[in-house]
Parts: sequence; C-alpha cells; structure tokens
Amino acid sequence: METTKQLTLRFASIIPYEESDPFPLENIPFGVFVNPNEQEAHCCTRVSSFVIDLALLENDRLIEADNVFRISSLNRFISKGKDYWLYVRKTLQQLLTRDNPNSLTPEQLAKYAFNSSDAKMHLPLKIGHFTDFSSSKNHAQNIAVMFKGKDGSLHNNFVHMPIAYHSRASSIVVSGGQIRRPKGQLRMGEWGATDKLDFELEIGTIIGNANKLGHPVKLQQAEDYIFGYTLLNDWSSRDILLWENVPLGPFNSKNFCTTISPWIITAIALSPFKHPLPPQDPQPLPYLHSPSNFTYHIDLSVSLSTGKTEQTILTSNFKNMYWSPTQQLTHHTVTGCNLQIGDILGSGTVSGKGPRECGSLFELSGGESIVLENGEERKFLHDGDIVTLRGQCKGEGYVIGFGECTGTVIPALDNSEYY
Amino acid sequence: METTKQLTLRFASIIPYEESDPFPLENIPFGVFVNPNEQEAHCCTRVSSFVIDLALLENDRLIEADNVFRISSLNRFISKGKDYWLYVRKTLQQLLTRDNPNSLTPEQLAKYAFNSSDAKMHLPLKIGHFTDFSSSKNHAQNIAVMFKGKDGSLHNNFVHMPIAYHSRASSIVVSGGQIRRPKGQLRMGEWGATDKLDFELEIGTIIGNANKLGHPVKLQQAEDYIFGYTLLNDWSSRDILLWENVPLGPFNSKNFCTTISPWIITAIALSPFKHPLPPQDPQPLPYLHSPSNFTYHIDLSVSLSTGKTEQTILTSNFKNMYWSPTQQLTHHTVTGCNLQIGDILGSGTVSGKGPRECGSLFELSGGESIVLENGEERKFLHDGDIVTLRGQCKGEGYVIGFGECTGTVIPALDNSEYY
Ligand SMILES: [Ca+2]
Ligand SMILES: [Ca+2]
Ligand SMILES: [Mg+2]
Ligand SMILES: [Mg+2]
Ligand code: NI
Repeated sequence: METTKQLTLRFASIIPYEESDPFPLENIPFGVFVNPNEQEAHCCTRVSSFVIDLALLENDRLIEADNVFRISSLNRFISKGKDYWLYVRKTLQQLLTRDNPNSLTPEQLAKYAFNSSDAKMHLPLKIGHFTDFSSSKNHAQNIAVMFKGKDGSLHNNFVHMPIAYHSRASSIVVSGGQIRRPKGQLRMGEWGATDKLDFELEIGTIIGNANKLGHPVKLQQAEDYIFGYTLLNDWSSRDILLWENVPLGPFNSKNFCTTISPWIITAIALSPFKHPLPPQDPQPLPYLHSPSNFTYHIDLSVSLSTGKTEQTILTSNFKNMYWSPTQQLTHHTVTGCNLQIGDILGSGTVSGKGPRECGSLFELSGGESIVLENGEERKFLHDGDIVTLRGQCKGEGYVIGFGECTGTVIPALDNSEYY
Repeated sequence: METTKQLTLRFASIIPYEESDPFPLENIPFGVFVNPNEQEAHCCTRVSSFVIDLALLENDRLIEADNVFRISSLNRFISKGKDYWLYVRKTLQQLLTRDNPNSLTPEQLAKYAFNSSDAKMHLPLKIGHFTDFSSSKNHAQNIAVMFKGKDGSLHNNFVHMPIAYHSRASSIVVSGGQIRRPKGQLRMGEWGATDKLDFELEIGTIIGNANKLGHPVKLQQAEDYIFGYTLLNDWSSRDILLWENVPLGPFNSKNFCTTISPWIITAIALSPFKHPLPPQDPQPLPYLHSPSNFTYHIDLSVSLSTGKTEQTILTSNFKNMYWSPTQQLTHHTVTGCNLQIGDILGSGTVSGKGPRECGSLFELSGGESIVLENGEERKFLHDGDIVTLRGQCKGEGYVIGFGECTGTVIPALDNSEYY
C-alpha cells in the first residue's frame, strides 16, 4: 500500500487505506457485531478493514451517548433522531482523522478497532416490518412475461403508483448465512423442493422515523423518515410464486428468507450520489409528484459461485428505478399506515435495460440457461451455489461501498420433516 | 339476577353471574388493561363484568410468576409455554371458585377486581406479524365475482391450499378506537377518500410458540403453536383494493387499520367447541391432510350503529371455514417461514352460505344497498358508523364469549395533510 494513495479527498485517516477502499471516512456505515473480547453484540462502524466498537467509545466518553450502542440492534441509536446521527458521524470522522485535536492515538485505536475478519456481523436491526416494492419498469415487464407469456405487458397500475406487498420480517437474516431450499406446492397437486430458486437484487430502505397511525407522510417530508440503505436479496421461488400469486400476491414463495448486508449506508453518506429519476409519464398524482424526486447512482452487481467457478453474472444500477424511495415511503403511508423505526422497504428488483442488467436469474436467463465462463449452466440456483450482491458509489477520489450481501443455498429437508 | 341461575355447570364462582354471561369461569380470557389506581398496563383476566389484575395476584404470591404480568403485553406470559398457561388458568379458577380452600375472600377480591366499565383495555399483544388468510369458500367466491364480474369463479388454487398475504401488524388497534376513512388512489388517475369502506368479520389466531427459520411446523404439531383466538375486523377499502390488487395483492387497501377484540380466548377454553371441517375435495397434499382437522363452532355476528339505529346486520359461524387454523399455520411455515409469539393469523372473512351470513358489507349488499330497519340504506360504511363484531360458543349451562370488537368510522383528513 503506497502512502500517496492513502489520502482521500477530504479526510486523512489514521487508518491507512487506498482510494478504492469501500469504507473510507466518507462512508461511516452502521452495523452490529459481536465484540470478540466480550462476546456481546455492540453497535459499530467500519473504516477500511476495521470494525470500530461504538459501545467502547461511549464507555470512554469519546461519543456522548445515552446507552444506545451496547445493544444488539441499531434501533435505539436511530430513534435518537437525525441531529444525533449527524453528531455521531461527525464525531467518528474527527476521532479517525489525523492531525485533529481529537484524533485517537494508536493505543486508543488498538482498543476500539477489530480486524473485520475477526468480527462476526449480526443482523443490524430489529426489523418490525418488511415491505417489498416493484419499482423497476424493466423488472416488472420481465415478470409480466413470466406470468402471462410472451405478450405479457406491464400491469396498467405500474406507472400510477409504486406497487408493493407486505412481506415477512422474521425471516430476514444477515449476510453470510445458509438458505434452505424450500419445499412446497410447486404446481396444482404437486409437492416438492422448488426447482426455480432465484435471487432478487434490491436496495433496502431503512426507516429512521415513525409516523402516527392515520397520518400520511408527505412526499416533501419523506427524506426525513429514511436512515439509510442496505443491499437486499429477496430470495424467491418462481414455481411456488406462479402457483400462489393469484389472487393475493406472493406468500410462501418469498417468506422463507431474505438476506441483507450487515452495513447500513446512511442517507447522508449517499447524498453526493443522488440522481434524478427517469421521467415519469403520466405525471403522478399530486401526493407522489415532485420535481425533486431522486434515486441514487449506485453500481450494483451479482456474482455467482458454483464451487467450481465464481463470476459476476450481472451488473445493474439503482439509477434505473422508475419510482423513488421517497415516493415508495409516501405511498406506503397514504391510507394512514404507520411506519416504525427499523422497518425495511425493499426497492424491488433493480433491473436495467441491457441483457446483462437484470436483477434476477430468471430474467437473466429468460427461461433458457445462462452459460458460465467454465461451461457450467444455470437456469435457476443449484444447491451449494453462493450468491453475492455488491454495491458501490464512485466519488471524486473515494468510494462509498455497501459491502457484500451473500448467502449459500443448502439442500431441502427430507419429507419426514414435513409430514 | 337470581341466585339459582348463578351456578354454571362446573364452577360456583365467588363472582355471581348468569348462565348466559360471556365470561364465566370456564372462559378465563387474557388481556391487558390499564390499572386505574396505578395508571399502568397490567395483564388481566375477566370474570363476568370484573377485570382481575394478574400483576396484583403475582405481587401477593397468589399466582407463581416470574414477572410476566406487570407489563403491557401478554407476550412474556405466553412465552412461558403451554403448561404454564394451564397452571395459570387452573389457579385462577380455584381462586375464584366458592368453597375452595384457595378461594379469595371478598376483601381480597375487592383488591384485585375492577369493574370492567372502569378498565381501559389495551392492545393485548406486541404483534410482530399479521398474516391474513382467505379460507372461506363462500367469501372467496363472492370476492371473485367482485373482481371478475358475475361469472367470476373461485381461483383454482383455493381448494389446494389456504391462500394468504402478509398484512400490516403496526396498524392493529384494540377494540374501541376510531378508524380514519383513508384517502388514496381509487381508480386510474383518481384521488380521494374511499367510497367503499368495508369491514371483514374474522377470527384472529394468536401464535403461542415459535418455530425455527427453515423448519416447518408439522400439521400434527400445529395445535401446540396456538395460544388462543380473538375477533378481528380487517377494515378494507374495496375501490383501492380493486385498483392495486393485481399483481402483488392487497396493500394500501388493508394496511390502514385492523381492529382486534381485547380478550384472547384460549384454545383450551374453546376445546369443547371443536367442530369437524367441511369435507375437503380434492384431498389436500399430505402436509395439509389429517382426518382430525377441525374448526370451532363459534356463533358470530356484526352489528351496525348509524347514530339513528343499531341492528345486527349479519350472522355467521366459524364452523363454515374451508381450511382450519392448524392448516393455515402449517402452510404458513411450509417453505420455512418462522412464526413468532404474538403473531396473528387472520382466518379470512367468515362467510356462510345464506344471504345474511356474509362477513362483509360488500358481500351482504351484493353491490346493491342493504336497507336497515329504520329505512336507512348502506352500500358501504358512512362516517360515524360504528361496526361491532361479536362471537360466542354455547356450552351446556354456560357460554364462552369473545366480547366485542368495535370501531367508529371518522371522516377523511383534508387534502392539505397529503400534499
Ligand atoms: Ca422482490
Ligand atoms: Ca381479510
Ligand atoms: Mg424475501
Ligand atoms: Mg386490515
Ligand atoms: Ni355444529
């Protein structure tokens, strides 16, 4: 590592890293890890390859806190509000910048920082509710073809509102786990392990503020209700989905597992990467209409590891979304639904226009198999496959990385576990 | 009140009540109320018109407990498990039975019991997740006609599995509140207050045990995962539903509010009222098939109060369900979804076959208006209308009542609250 490359645009970090490091001082993501000395879950941030324990910083009064970090979720921290999020971010940046009166000494740093390879990450939130949207026009079009055949067209409400379904919060797990291949009803009268296990590349919006039941969140205020974003893999069973989806939407095909990345990238860290939404036509109703609706320019990719090979099978970008996270949030509350801190809104699969820009294997393969570089083929996921979502924003002289969101498919249970 | 009528079949209560009382000692429902002396939420039971504070009984060591009752939800109590539920039930029955060595003295009773009219009931649970099923064949048929016109037929998956969607837990409220008429997208390009606000008469199944993610609950074990049942009104907006439902199911049309009754009637209290399911044809797949699948014989009714008149507008019975609560529970977990203590499974609207046995106004009116006894008409709910669900099981010499599940419709907010 060359010293000349260590400096980012704005910060000279006491932890050396290169310009391409996903976790520079501009990032300051939040997560929860198991402190290896105390064997206790604490809130943390990350700089380069170091996880920094916020509970220990609080202990030593280096951050003013109200017992919000020695706990296995970020919810209490988030509930302190936006001004406090900014205070903690700024304080961490000062503690970790060189030649600052508050810089940590090397001895202090050694006390608070853990190598990320020694840090077992924990689900960062107590997630009350998980709602999943469909807001990529390309994805919705691809799915319509799956359901209705070649002539399937986008449903006529898609351009009028960000369509969504309530999904299942209890089965959200943190990156790194195993995903059991589900068994269920695959078609009429047919029982078995799903043949069509798929991933969905999504961004999760983390709710940072609660509205009162019966009182919608106006679009102009919606940004104040967002704490940050994660990567989200909405594991899906396409055969179970097709059989159950009409008339009440996805259920068993989605509720068996969803994986999120361990780091929440804050809205403030992402603000330089705001990107205008593509034009919305027709113009949305007034409660969803604003000239300043935005998405983010986030480069996304999915890699597949088969045991024999690992390769990036698709790339996409969050700028491709038709509906913005703020429009999703406002629409969620329009009839009066109350959001709670720690709720997650899935963006919906992020698919671009190109043939390699689909956010799911189903769309990528178009019903055929894709051929990997070593000749292996995949129509859907096999047991043992490892799926990894990645995301990053490229700034001037620095990168805001999302880290990884990964999971390994394991074989279905024996029938004797079911009946 | 005549003394000769005070005695129920099995218990001579220290609190006198008649045979028709919905809360005899055979019932022993559980709820949470605000103790008017301490202004603090405590777990409680009810006998006749008295609410009995379980936290005070624990204080005085009349129930062995582990600090599970001085808290604003039943979740901790429920998490102690089935043997403990039975111990508490039995202990309460003994304390409240006359001529028993453990009977409470009148002075003790005066200390622990509060007149129900002085007791403000609280939401009885911390509800992690709310899933709503569609399991009444009559209701599903009626709804199919709504969506597809006169020739609409039951979707072909209905007889193969208990169809469900994940709904919204945060907007569940306890009986007695106000329901704000929602605004939203009523039709393509049309914004406004819903014209088609409706109720749905349902039974809520309260989950009493958690399964591990990835591990389904077998049908034979499903009963062990149920703590009890409540009345549940799944308030619905039919115009918003029709516009949003395809392709991902109900969302804004359902997530604005759901009301449950304050008392959870335990599975053990209901066990004498088990009723065989109607025949299932075709025979379900093995994971849903059991000759001992059951529902309950629960008489249900809905009354409507318009301010000028109040009348019972429909009656139904839980015995009419096509799928059992245990089949619903097992199906929910089949792909591996983990249920948690305090989750609620809505039965789906309980509609019978007769024209006055529908579980919603929409079905009752069949698109026309119903005419009330005083000549008023209703197609859907008006502002100011009060909807009350009631339920009871008639035993030999006693009744197990569910109490009431009521809510008042209040006018929509002004547009300035939305944009
Ligand atoms: Ca999805
Ligand atoms: Ca319902
Ligand atoms: Mg999922
Ligand atoms: Mg509802
Ligand atoms: Ni009967």
